[in-house]
Formats: sequence, C-alpha cells, structure tokens
Amino acid sequence: MSLPTTDAADPSGPSAIPPNAALWFDAGRGVARALDQSLLPHETRALDLVDLARVAEAIRAMRVRGAPLIGIAAAFGLAAALRVDASPEAEARAAAALLATRPGAVSLAWALARVRRAVAGVGPGAGAEARAAAALAEARAILAHEIAVCAAIGEHGLPILERLWAGKRARDAKAPHLDVLTHCNAGWLATGEWGTALAPVYRAHAAGLPVHVWVDETRPRGQGASLTAWELGRASVPHTLLADTMAGHVLQRGKVDVCLVGSDRTTRSGDVCNKIGTYLVALAARDNGVPFYACVPTSSLDAELSDGVLDIPIEERDAREVTHVRGLAEDGTVRTVRVPPAGTRAANFAFDVTPARLVTGIVTEHGMYPASAEGLAPLLERARVG
Amino acid sequence: MSLPTTDAADPSGPSAIPPNAALWFDAGRGVARALDQSLLPHETRALDLVDLARVAEAIRAMRVRGAPLIGIAAAFGLAAALRVDASPEAEARAAAALLATRPGAVSLAWALARVRRAVAGVGPGAGAEARAAAALAEARAILAHEIAVCAAIGEHGLPILERLWAGKRARDAKAPHLDVLTHCNAGWLATGEWGTALAPVYRAHAAGLPVHVWVDETRPRGQGASLTAWELGRASVPHTLLADTMAGHVLQRGKVDVCLVGSDRTTRSGDVCNKIGTYLVALAARDNGVPFYACVPTSSLDAELSDGVLDIPIEERDAREVTHVRGLAEDGTVRTVRVPPAGTRAANFAFDVTPARLVTGIVTEHGMYPASAEGLAPLLERARVG
Repeated sequence: MSLPTTDAADPSGPSAIPPNAALWFDAGRGVARALDQSLLPHETRALDLVDLARVAEAIRAMRVRGAPLIGIAAAFGLAAALRVDASPEAEARAAAALLATRPGAVSLAWALARVRRAVAGVGPGAGAEARAAAALAEARAILAHEIAVCAAIGEHGLPILERLWAGKRARDAKAPHLDVLTHCNAGWLATGEWGTALAPVYRAHAAGLPVHVWVDETRPRGQGASLTAWELGRASVPHTLLADTMAGHVLQRGKVDVCLVGSDRTTRSGDVCNKIGTYLVALAARDNGVPFYACVPTSSLDAELSDGVLDIPIEERDAREVTHVRGLAEDGTVRTVRVPPAGTRAANFAFDVTPARLVTGIVTEHGMYPASAEGLAPLLERARVG
Repeated sequence: MSLPTTDAADPSGPSAIPPNAALWFDAGRGVARALDQSLLPHETRALDLVDLARVAEAIRAMRVRGAPLIGIAAAFGLAAALRVDASPEAEARAAAALLATRPGAVSLAWALARVRRAVAGVGPGAGAEARAAAALAEARAILAHEIAVCAAIGEHGLPILERLWAGKRARDAKAPHLDVLTHCNAGWLATGEWGTALAPVYRAHAAGLPVHVWVDETRPRGQGASLTAWELGRASVPHTLLADTMAGHVLQRGKVDVCLVGSDRTTRSGDVCNKIGTYLVALAARDNGVPFYACVPTSSLDAELSDGVLDIPIEERDAREVTHVRGLAEDGTVRTVRVPPAGTRAANFAFDVTPARLVTGIVTEHGMYPASAEGLAPLLERARVG
C-alpha cells in the first residue's frame, strides 16, 4: 500500500502523490507535502509545506485536517521556520503562530512541544543549521510515529474483523463480505497513513478478507461523502455511501456486522467524544446487538476527564455549514448552494459524546481495552509511565 | 390561520395562495390549486389542477407530495377528467393513469375509489354533467375531511404539549419555551391544512403556548430543511434547523421536551413506518427519557400488518438523491451539486420502522392511543365499524 505512484490529476508538478498518505516527506526535494483536503474529492492537489505562513494557512483553512495530521503539519511548519531563522526568538514566535491556528487542538500543542524539546536538546551552543536539522528530524520522527501507531491499531483490529467474518461465514457460507459501518473520516486522510477506524479495514483488505464499508455521509461537513468515500475508492475497498439517517435502518435489517469509528477525545471511563452523529450510530448498534468499537491512538485518551456528557464542552460551528452545501455543479465548477429558506436559523454542534455503556471496546496501538474505568486503567498507567 | 392572503411571490397570477394550505379549491375560478412543492423553498408558485395530464405530472414529479395530499390531488384530477369526458370508459382510463403515478400510495387508491363510488352513486341514467359534478363534490369532500382530521389531531395533541409545558415551567420558572423535535415534513404541506405531527404545534402556537421546533433537515431529500423550515417560518413558529446527526446530541443535553413525527404506515401493534431516520430519533428519545409520539390519521393504520420490521418492505430510491444536493447558488439560480467523488455507489432507503416499544403514543383524530396491539384495538374496531 505504500508504493508511491504519480497522479495525473496533480497539477502541482511531476512530484508523486502517494496512494495512501495525506502528508509525506519528499526526500528527493527535501520538503514535506500534503494533500489539499479542502479541494477533495473534486480535485487532487498537493501543497508544499515549505514556509511558516503557508503551513499556518493550510491548518487554518482546513486544507490539512484530522487531529494527528494537524500536529504533524505544525511540526514541519516549525522546522521550515527554523530553516529561515533558527534563533530562539523566531522559534518562539513561529510556535505561537502555529498554535493559534486551531487553539483547541491537543495534538498541535503536543507536536510543537516535541519539536522544541528536540531543538533544545542540541545544546545552547549549537549553530542555526544544527537547530534546524534537529527540528526537521523530529518532525519526520513524529510522522513516522503516527504511521506506526495507526499500523498497530490496524494489527489489533484485524483479529476482531477476522473473528466476525469467521462467525458470519459459519452462519451463512454464501455471505459475500463483512459489512463495516463507519462515521466521518478516520482514515489515512486524518493521520499519517492507514488511519485509526479504517486501519483495521485496510489491514483486512490487504489480508484478503472481503470487507465492504457503509460510509455515513456525516453532515454537515460531509467528511464521509467527500473524504472517506474518496480514500476508500483510491484503495479499491468496496463501499456504499449512506445518508446519516439510514444508519439505523441498515443496522436493524442485519446489513452491518461491526461499527468502527474514531475518537477525538476519550475519557478515562471510556466515553467517546467524536464527530456529531456518532452517538446515534452507537445507539442503533446497541439496539441491534452489533459491536461498536472506537479506534484511537492512546494519545487521545484524556486521563483528566471522567464523565464525557458532563465534562466535555461541545464546539458550535458556523450555521452556514448546515444551511449550505458545496459540491460539483453540472457545469464543472465547484459551487455552494443554500438548501433551506433564506434566514433560517440553524444550530451546528460539531461533536457528540457516546457513553461508554454503548462502546464494545477501545482499540489502540497497544491492543483492545474495555470501555470502562477499570478496563482503561492499565492503558493509562502505561501512558503515564511510558 | 385560514384567512387567504395574496402572495407577492406567486407568479401564476393574482389568485390568492392561502397561508397554510398546500392544496385548496378556488371557488371563484372553480378550480383546485396546489403549491408546486418541487420549487420550495426558493420559489412560491401555485399550479392549477385543471386537467388529467397536469395532475398526473404534478404527482409523478412530486410537485404535490405527502400521502394525504396525493390522494386529494388525484381526486381532483379524476374530477377534471370527467369534465372533459364523463363516459365510464374515460373514467376508468383516467383512474388507471392517476393510480400509475405513485403505484404504492395507499391514499391514492383510496381517494380514487371514493370518487368512483360517488360517481356510480348518481345512477346509470345520469348525464355527463351530473357525473362530473358528483366527482368534483366528492373531491372537495375528501379535502374537507382531511382538513378536519388534521385539526382533530391538533386538538388531541394540544393537552400533551400543555402538560409538558406545565411540568417544564414547574421545574424551571424561567424556561423560555417548550422544545419540540420533528423529523421530515408532516405539516400542512403534506396534508390539507394543519398537518399531522405539526398540528399540535400550530394549535399550541395559536393558543399562546411558547413553542420552539428543532427541525431535522431529513437527508437525503431534505424535507425538513426545504419544507418544514419554510412552513414554520410562514406561520411564524420559532424553529432551528439541525443536521440529522445532531438529534441525539440535543436530546442528550436536555434541549428537547418531546418528539413529534408523522407516519406513512402504522401496524396494528404500533410499529411506525416513517421517513428514514425516524428510528434513530426514537432511539435517542428513549435513551434520554423524552416522550416520542407519532401523529397519524386513522386511515394510515394498517390492520393487516403486525411486525413492522418483518412485514414492511422498504422502498429504495434513486442514489442520486444521496449523492446530489439541490439549492440556491450565489448567482441566484437553483443548481444541483454532487458531493462525493464521481461514481460513488450510494444506497437510498426511503423509510424505516420504529418499533412500538420506542413509541410513547399514537395521536389520532380520535385521541391518543398506546402503541401496542391492545392499545390500538379499540381504534381499529372503530375504523372497521365506521
């Protein structure tokens, strides 16, 4: 899955766009590059993460999105800034500018701190070149780390899918495929490679297990329709798009074997804060006896939080995301259309909380853990020590 | 609410468009008229139901939609056909043509049979004029009946809202309004006047009870965004649009006091078949202890059906409704845009089934009944006898 290929649709030049990476280091040119996700799925274009201003704009405009990916991009942005001016003052200014692009993003702060520690590690007497080189090396290490974490999530998710597939085939020898339902985009577009929720799917697909994915379109921003459907198509994984309203029906009619979602934040008691609508999927999965897993990097566990419904404030975004829809018009231009009457008031809650009681398990890079305070305690202990 | 007003946006002529009717008889001109719902909310235009071909096209193209409204329109279409040719052969041909516009619609068959019985009732020796007059009179009687049924549903729903409002104010003297959540469009655009699920809302609003409606946008066709938001706005009922993914969150955070939905078909055991996504709303209502009512005319109860999940086949519609969205572009034209990548496969299930165990009660024109075989038996007995 990791062989780079050239992409005819890439107008940014002859440089290769890998088939399953949203951000990669082009060793030949010595620059980090990222897909411009604000153009997907109607245009495939990569941008060079070559200077601070460009990286900051890319994060702010959500050209680069997904918690892990934002951190990685910021790390490369800081490295790029140090190549221009490696002074401690410039470093602090660049870090502050990057932090301000998405103030709430935990992964962003974490990645910037990691790069700054690495730069500090080369010693007070080091020259500009050594400081810049240390920053770039650390950004590349962060990227490699995220890829490894996602690959491990895929490895730990694979036996779950294998077990479900064996059970399905035992009940029905003619069952054509294992049906996975996912919500939003927790694939490789949100991370380094592989993704979180989709990592087990890609792993199973690579292993020859016939998997089919029901993709919730995920209104209002439509990440399922515009990103998940695109990346599954690129990986040739069979999939079918659903309006979000249809998840309950396909679960009720036995068309789904397992639900896999990501999580932006997971409490120490196993409550899962993820894209708005995840809670409804979990309710329907429970009502129909279908397992529901959150696939998360351990770094997204929040040991400070216990009750997700009480403790997690929910971001409200611009109502225009609900009232307006962007897509490709018949004349080949990308246009935005308004669906409700002018002046209609709309709410736009960005996330919801799925209580732990609805979550079958939390799949991490260290294995699968029960979604409960007792179940997650060993994992949190490991993160605290490690 | 029933005073006709002229509508400046009506380009079909000086004739009045009533503020709360999707189909009405213009006694001055002697013709039935209907809003062209395929243009809403971006254009308010009425069409004359003056000949068979035009009525058939209006039903087929969903200019007229909503189960009760289709029946009413078909009745006027048959009456219009008889005015041109009142022979039994022409009557049979016209009825068949109308029936073929939406083959599955129970209300369509019911309304056509009712008109044909009335025509037969004038006797074999009656002239063409008497036959045509009988058809028109029966079409008007069907319209009047549907309006009365919806008004009665509103009367029976009102005390439910009054009770909930009294309870809310007792808990919080500063509560600003009673929060109702609805899915799809079960307002006056789907019926004669008042609507079914929205009838109690309009009745409460008229009675001075401060009511606010959360409107699920209801993907894929967006009836909540384009129709319910429009008709609530026209009636000055405060409302807020939600992406369907957000219903669980607002229920979980205590922002909803009651859910009111319509039903296309209700089994004798109280299972509710309604617009896709209704089941998810019901699950979230139950998980948070919020009452969930289906408001239905008794005529939509199906005494033959028992288990909704097993017995009701679910219509699948064109995938394009999921992949494409229609709205008003910034240049003022109505355009259709595609959201996912070209060639993305999509499913489009039109309805789902909410099991009776999740339904607090069935509100009908005869009162509120428990959603169970025992609870509905008296109502079915009444319908059988009456």
